[in-house]
Amino acid sequence: MDLKEKIEIYENFPKEGISFKDINSLILEPDAFKLVIDEMLKVAKALDANIIAIPEARGYIFGTPLAYLLGAGLVPVRKPGKLPGEVSSEEYDLEYGSNRVEIQKDAIKPGDRIIVVDDLLATGGTIMAATKLIEKLGGEISGIITLIELTDLGGREVLKDYFVHSLITYPC
Amino acid sequence: MDLKEKIEIYENFPKEGISFKDINSLILEPDAFKLVIDEMLKVAKALDANIIAIPEARGYIFGTPLAYLLGAGLVPVRKPGKLPGEVSSEEYDLEYGSNRVEIQKDAIKPGDRIIVVDDLLATGGTIMAATKLIEKLGGEISGIITLIELTDLGGREVLKDYFVHSLITYPC
Repeated sequence: MDLKEKIEIYENFPKEGISFKDINSLILEPDAFKLVIDEMLKVAKALDANIIAIPEARGYIFGTPLAYLLGAGLVPVRKPGKLPGEVSSEEYDLEYGSNRVEIQKDAIKPGDRIIVVDDLLATGGTIMAATKLIEKLGGEISGIITLIELTDLGGREVLKDYFVHSLITYPC
Repeated sequence: MDLKEKIEIYENFPKEGISFKDINSLILEPDAFKLVIDEMLKVAKALDANIIAIPEARGYIFGTPLAYLLGAGLVPVRKPGKLPGEVSSEEYDLEYGSNRVEIQKDAIKPGDRIIVVDDLLATGGTIMAATKLIEKLGGEISGIITLIELTDLGGREVLKDYFVHSLITYPC
């Protein structure tokens, strides 16, 4: 099965100039979704992690079945103000302005080995912020797995200190 | 295992007067997360559905492993403006003001049988809006599965036309 054929492309969404890769057409098809999870699982198994970190919201879609199948714990990486209790937060730059992500402080312990799973690796901003947060709390990044990688946007270079695996690539 | 013991409670989050049931402590523990998914799976199997609908964002956490295990497709129920292409949308009332959820129009076809999976059944507003959207597009609701139900908030009454199953209950 060619997974790329299952991704619908919308030009100029959510704004002018963006060629949006829509995963919803893929996850609607059980066989395509299963293939993605099974391929990610093969990679994840070799990374010997005990926690899957999932950036909100589309990271949840691929990270949670992986956590279930691996027997790993789940740590959501959320937008500000969504998590109760003490949180650790990290800011990252956007094209215009900046964004911030948060993790609960007691979710990561020294010695934890974490895979960050997301739908998309573009500039690497969100994922890099997640890895910094995790390391600040004493966790070790086992690797990063994404469904899609936009190779011209430089995310792999930003994340060059880590093992990065993506299933589908587009230039941008 | 007593799943309730795995839920952390935060008083006055996200605002005064709310006793927030935090699922993050539960999903961090692989055995607890696996038990939740396996219990939901038993119920879901009997409902003969081909699609799992998942309200953003915490619904994703429980709905996606279920879709994988059942061999069902996934349909995200998102906040406005997140989904590309043609969407169908439904407004619902909050304590103050209102909210809106969206589904991609071509995600549901007449004859589809859908389970709505979410973390929490409170007043039933979001889930009811999701069921209306699904039915508007010709889908049939097989049932609703949530991890937590706040029994004093009337969600079950709002959803009285549907089969509703929750794993843990609190009064509010």
